[in-house]
Amino acid sequence: MSLNPNLTAERPTFVTHLECSMTGERYEADQLHGLSSVGRPLLVRYDLDGVRAMAPRAMIEARPTDLWRWRELLPVRRTADIVSLGEIETPLVPIPKSGGPNVLVKDEGRLPTGSFKARGLVMAVAMAKALGVTKIAMPTNGNAGAALAAYATRCGIETIVLCPEETPEVNVREIAAQGARVYRVNGQIDDCGAIVGRGAAEGRWFDFSTLKEPYRIEGKKTMGLELAAQFRWKLPQAIFYPTGGGTGLIGMWKAFAEMETLGWIGPERPKMFAVQASGCAPIVRAFEAGEEHAERWEDAATVAAGIRVPKAVGDFLILRAVRESGGTAMAVGDPAILKAVDDCARQDGLLMCPEGGATLAAYREALRTGLVDEDDRVVLFNCATGLKYPMPEAGIALDRHGEIDLGGL
Amino acid sequence: MSLNPNLTAERPTFVTHLECSMTGERYEADQLHGLSSVGRPLLVRYDLDGVRAMAPRAMIEARPTDLWRWRELLPVRRTADIVSLGEIETPLVPIPKSGGPNVLVKDEGRLPTGSFKARGLVMAVAMAKALGVTKIAMPTNGNAGAALAAYATRCGIETIVLCPEETPEVNVREIAAQGARVYRVNGQIDDCGAIVGRGAAEGRWFDFSTLKEPYRIEGKKTMGLELAAQFRWKLPQAIFYPTGGGTGLIGMWKAFAEMETLGWIGPERPKMFAVQASGCAPIVRAFEAGEEHAERWEDAATVAAGIRVPKAVGDFLILRAVRESGGTAMAVGDPAILKAVDDCARQDGLLMCPEGGATLAAYREALRTGLVDEDDRVVLFNCATGLKYPMPEAGIALDRHGEIDLGGL
Repeated sequence: MSLNPNLTAERPTFVTHLECSMTGERYEADQLHGLSSVGRPLLVRYDLDGVRAMAPRAMIEARPTDLWRWRELLPVRRTADIVSLGEIETPLVPIPKSGGPNVLVKDEGRLPTGSFKARGLVMAVAMAKALGVTKIAMPTNGNAGAALAAYATRCGIETIVLCPEETPEVNVREIAAQGARVYRVNGQIDDCGAIVGRGAAEGRWFDFSTLKEPYRIEGKKTMGLELAAQFRWKLPQAIFYPTGGGTGLIGMWKAFAEMETLGWIGPERPKMFAVQASGCAPIVRAFEAGEEHAERWEDAATVAAGIRVPKAVGDFLILRAVRESGGTAMAVGDPAILKAVDDCARQDGLLMCPEGGATLAAYREALRTGLVDEDDRVVLFNCATGLKYPMPEAGIALDRHGEIDLGGL
Repeated sequence: MSLNPNLTAERPTFVTHLECSMTGERYEADQLHGLSSVGRPLLVRYDLDGVRAMAPRAMIEARPTDLWRWRELLPVRRTADIVSLGEIETPLVPIPKSGGPNVLVKDEGRLPTGSFKARGLVMAVAMAKALGVTKIAMPTNGNAGAALAAYATRCGIETIVLCPEETPEVNVREIAAQGARVYRVNGQIDDCGAIVGRGAAEGRWFDFSTLKEPYRIEGKKTMGLELAAQFRWKLPQAIFYPTGGGTGLIGMWKAFAEMETLGWIGPERPKMFAVQASGCAPIVRAFEAGEEHAERWEDAATVAAGIRVPKAVGDFLILRAVRESGGTAMAVGDPAILKAVDDCARQDGLLMCPEGGATLAAYREALRTGLVDEDDRVVLFNCATGLKYPMPEAGIALDRHGEIDLGGL
């Protein structure tokens, strides 16, 4: 039983084909694909003329606001293949004291399994279901694995999840609780990815690594669609996005292009700020060097595990979007990240995750160096609930039988 | 900056007065109140004829779906007093495998600070702000304190939070991270409440204990309003509600009455099931004994800390609502609670909190004993995100340098 028509109504779909993000080579829709023949991500293409004719913006605006309202711009053909745990439109929370008068945090921690990974995985799992996949493996720093486990479990797909040994305990336990088999590997996320890749090559499972299947990006794209709707089709001046694999940044950039073609938004774009941690900043290094690709970052280390990604298969797509937007790639140190998390919680009552804190730290730095102006409308992405991350010890003992100095409390 | 008109538009308000829930004695609106003169909760009353004339249902339905859409049925007079961290309408998630075909979980873990306590506290804090309160103290099993800390911090009100020593570490840390001073007391929540009450009597702070100020119930009422809107003004057959202080159950019951007076719903009501833990079931004991009030439960113990409430000041209101509805008060054991949490996560991919698990355990029991039918449309309240609670250890070590038997994964 569902009361949400977005999950139950049959709707026309408009996918025409997939294409290689590097060469433009064309691939058939409705077939199982990994990377393109040159080892790069595939992008889903739509008949946007068809969407324009059949799904006017006002029609979509009249629907409930969850992720599935965007169905005509999503790849899932049959309503029966939709999987859902309640993918609500995430709220924009002002942080006037720790950020500024024009800063809004898109609080992605409200999604199922507590992170924006739900957007990508709900779509990828629905497509895996549609295409008959029965076993999936994935490397993860934590949140993606939790989202995969939840959605795959929901539709009876078997999952193997590999995490770097530094992955927080709560993430590992959450993944297991939601029905996946989970392993800790003594290495980084790309070491986990290598094991997943080997098994996929041997036909043991389908590889769900970031951008190695074509549909997570379509799910993440909804962040861009939602922002446009929330800003009443006039995008903010800048977006600060915590960038590991970069699927969300690539996805939003794709969404903006699709919406412009549809006539839903104009040609103006936000400056895209790809935010990384100083201890793992391959995109920043490539951006500053003017390179199209980013080399692997050795000895990656940061408190923000979600952006501890030494090598991204979509590096060139991230770099292109950032450059086209007039934005920049920025690295921030762990102390600035932790201070931003602490300030935001203590001053504005919003507990961000470290990766979210990194965007606030980067915004502060961008303000200081004049990359953005205080009058600019800015969106920071808090990609997960702060509750999954370690917080400082607290709680002073009080003896109810003793003499309590109430004035001292 | 906010893009949500619910938070920025001035709207008419309709509070006429407050009244004692026991005697009906009348109290002035727009003044600071605690309990009534006989020590019972105060209820807020509205000019519902005025609401009917000025705020038709269709007008409210056209607004964004967050909690503040219900403004004409809420006590906050001035828009400037609204405090918000993005109180979204929480989704209804089907759990067909662990629950059944007609079971929906209202996933309150999506609210700010990860629990339904945000509903009550956002309202109480906004009213405290409106009425000039500068310092608040509260006893809490965890989640209420976190919500209080976040909202009070946001509008510069000082907060003291007292927790039983058994309160999970994550809750205590979250409260402190969000700017409150937090203490652990060697006792139960009512022992904490006694200390808070003493300080309030001495004029040191305002007492924010459950139902001891009149506005948390108005915030929790929105659960009932939301359910009606989500079910298109035809309520479900049964609601299973984890019952500690019972504010939400009382609030929903009040909401149903107000909506019937407004002509928004008919006279049909869901059967209300007040769910408690076998280790702390004062309401169940009173219900079964036919009493109007519930005696304190000694040596309370359960894994579901949120319903470890030995004595509820609104006991008679809970008991009345349950009886009027034709529902019942039910206790479930910790093993059944933990099994329900585990089943729901492993089968349906939804990680509930133990209190949410208690409602699933109670539903199963009610189904078995014929109190509800499998065809009945049923709502279970998952009152907080499962991420705040201990999960079993997981994660098998895998050596990337070693020989990995991929077939064995």
